[in-house]
Amino acid sequence: MEPRTSGRGSNSAQLRRYNERIVLQILRRAGEASKAELARAVQLTNAAIGAIIQDLIQEGLIVEAGKRHDGSRGQPATILRLASHGAFSFGVRLDRTNMETVLMDFSGAIIGRRLHDMILPAPERALEILKEDLEALRGYLSAEDLSRITGIGLAQPFNLGAWLHQLGLPEADFRKWDDFDLREALQEETGLPVFSENDGTAAAVAELFYGLGRQNDNFLYLFLGPAIGGGLVLKGDVIRGVSGNAADVAMIPVPPSNLRTAPVSGKTWDLMLTRASLVALGRHLSPENFSELRRKDLLEAVEKDDPLFREWLDDCAEALALGLRSAYALLDMPLVVIDSDIGGPFSLMFSDALKKAVADAAPEQRPSPDIKIGSFGQDAGAIGAASLPQFFNFSPRATILTGGKDLGPAGAGASEDNAGFPARAARLGSHLATPSRHD
Amino acid sequence: MEPRTSGRGSNSAQLRRYNERIVLQILRRAGEASKAELARAVQLTNAAIGAIIQDLIQEGLIVEAGKRHDGSRGQPATILRLASHGAFSFGVRLDRTNMETVLMDFSGAIIGRRLHDMILPAPERALEILKEDLEALRGYLSAEDLSRITGIGLAQPFNLGAWLHQLGLPEADFRKWDDFDLREALQEETGLPVFSENDGTAAAVAELFYGLGRQNDNFLYLFLGPAIGGGLVLKGDVIRGVSGNAADVAMIPVPPSNLRTAPVSGKTWDLMLTRASLVALGRHLSPENFSELRRKDLLEAVEKDDPLFREWLDDCAEALALGLRSAYALLDMPLVVIDSDIGGPFSLMFSDALKKAVADAAPEQRPSPDIKIGSFGQDAGAIGAASLPQFFNFSPRATILTGGKDLGPAGAGASEDNAGFPARAARLGSHLATPSRHD
Repeated sequence: MEPRTSGRGSNSAQLRRYNERIVLQILRRAGEASKAELARAVQLTNAAIGAIIQDLIQEGLIVEAGKRHDGSRGQPATILRLASHGAFSFGVRLDRTNMETVLMDFSGAIIGRRLHDMILPAPERALEILKEDLEALRGYLSAEDLSRITGIGLAQPFNLGAWLHQLGLPEADFRKWDDFDLREALQEETGLPVFSENDGTAAAVAELFYGLGRQNDNFLYLFLGPAIGGGLVLKGDVIRGVSGNAADVAMIPVPPSNLRTAPVSGKTWDLMLTRASLVALGRHLSPENFSELRRKDLLEAVEKDDPLFREWLDDCAEALALGLRSAYALLDMPLVVIDSDIGGPFSLMFSDALKKAVADAAPEQRPSPDIKIGSFGQDAGAIGAASLPQFFNFSPRATILTGGKDLGPAGAGASEDNAGFPARAARLGSHLATPSRHD
Repeated sequence: MEPRTSGRGSNSAQLRRYNERIVLQILRRAGEASKAELARAVQLTNAAIGAIIQDLIQEGLIVEAGKRHDGSRGQPATILRLASHGAFSFGVRLDRTNMETVLMDFSGAIIGRRLHDMILPAPERALEILKEDLEALRGYLSAEDLSRITGIGLAQPFNLGAWLHQLGLPEADFRKWDDFDLREALQEETGLPVFSENDGTAAAVAELFYGLGRQNDNFLYLFLGPAIGGGLVLKGDVIRGVSGNAADVAMIPVPPSNLRTAPVSGKTWDLMLTRASLVALGRHLSPENFSELRRKDLLEAVEKDDPLFREWLDDCAEALALGLRSAYALLDMPLVVIDSDIGGPFSLMFSDALKKAVADAAPEQRPSPDIKIGSFGQDAGAIGAASLPQFFNFSPRATILTGGKDLGPAGAGASEDNAGFPARAARLGSHLATPSRHD
């Protein structure tokens, strides 16, 4: 007999929770719907839907929002919507050069934000700043709303202390992050459950839950920042990987860069990171002091269509195209969603260059995935972080039904069992998740 | 309102079917178990498990196989097993140089086989041969058993008419396969449902259902044949991709080959196919007449550790290692399973070379996936084909619960609804699937 959780049966309590989340998802995607419309979409009976709706109203997660004649006979139908104050979440995003904390409501809107544009300080100092920011953001909420905070989402690069040399960053303070568990520290300081993901996966969750995921169940998400990160969505759920580091596109081997400013590889290949990253752009624009360049300097080069920017864009797109051909061969996914840290005209130029390069590298008779620009741009990381508690608490993932730990998200294991969530949130109790350690 | 099937609710009939399949899976993996052991493993009540067991016995899918004292007080417990005659399936495997048809029982054992080692003929002739083979294999079954055939699994390369030049094959008859739907033809000729997958995915399904999948929920499967194929298993289910062509590792771009016998690429990269395939080995052993080499010629070179074989093995492993690093970066899966068309000492030599090359190509601080030799070797394709009807009919996939078409296997859409299955199989009716067209 094997004790794997993938062998567990499913029960009617799991079934009910799943169906509740399906109803929330339909309202999230459609904005509003009547009971009859929900019953048709969910393919459950009117009675079953009626009971679910009553519970969700009582829990404060959905509200009646007026009446509407739906063209048929008789009484006008009651229209239902998500209650924007139904649940709140914090998002904390750390990068090697940024710290950001946001507060999100149940509709996915950011209702408060604190940003620090700075080289990441040592862990203890960073924790102090975050505590102040979280406290300041709590001030946005009423006492009633404060009881509806579902947790903190934490998004950070998979390994903050790695690639410092490649990224042109100082080592001293970063190395301290290797031994510091920010998730645990935040949980201890705030008493809130903390859901931690790498920044690419968090941004992909935002896209899945509040962006292009409304229409697309399968996509690879890429975010071009100082380094390059990604997230993977298959069958409408996020793929985390066994160590929480799926879609780590920076580590894909590609041919060495053609740029004279790139580090010499000495092999027949080099890592994607050396070609597809804003650090590579900065290094090509200003090899001597690229670690001092800021977002506005890069944007300036984009806006004047600097030939150096163009050289880098071609080199970056060629490398990414080969990585995307690998991903397409492995995953056969129809869509790639791209976002980046630079605003302005960059996204469109990047998307055009990438589409061409991906098509140019297509083998005989093979199509290419579609490429679309993401919904949140520079905000993807922060919105992604804040999306994590909302996603793991309220999305209709198949693992709710099968009761399995899937690949161990901070949350999905214990989360689906809802063991030991503070009584404070008792009203939301049947929904709320407790994150577990990655294991 | 969006009509996506991913938005459907789940119901108690789906729940029951899922739990039945979980019980079958536990028995398949463990060999045998008592009711109490099943209840513990599935985490359902004794009463719920009792009802499921009664139904499965009545449907002929499981049998009582004696009594056993389980160490506790009281009566000895009844031991349950899968009924090996509970269900049968055919597997048809086509390759560019082989045709094979097998008959499999419910325990996964091959009980009959017909093999043709020949360049694939034109479609009409191939269909005639397959019909004769299927008819001959039906002769192995009693009238009772014949009513328990769940369908035909069909495994073939994704695009038989492509890569002929690279593989050194004649074009004339192959081009006819571009416009021929063998799945439809077989279904029409036999009246049986036909489940079609590319050969790599089919072999991965065999490994998932009857091999290393008993212990591993996440792996990339590779099969080195004339070309190279693969299959992808995540969270205990097969990932087909939107066009049924996931894990098409042959199309991953890698640096051009170092071998003087390889075709000249003219680019900074070439396709995996040109380095990791038995055609590449044959071409290196005998550039003039490699398309005439047979499996035994390759095996001979392996067994005498021919320096030309070693040169190719290094070149192949280096290319595959870079592809596996890409896959590991994207999927963060802990395991790669490799199988091949050559028997003898090859698998171990291949596995050793690949382990070393994957570790050599690891970026800073990154671990490597484990590499294991598959369970079925040369038989992986045939067993894979025959596994398809068993897998789609009897495995506890999450899509059974969510009612969603997942990425459109031949079967998973209509299959889970069990619409219109022939009355002939009424006894198995609540289990059996009808394959739908890929769409």
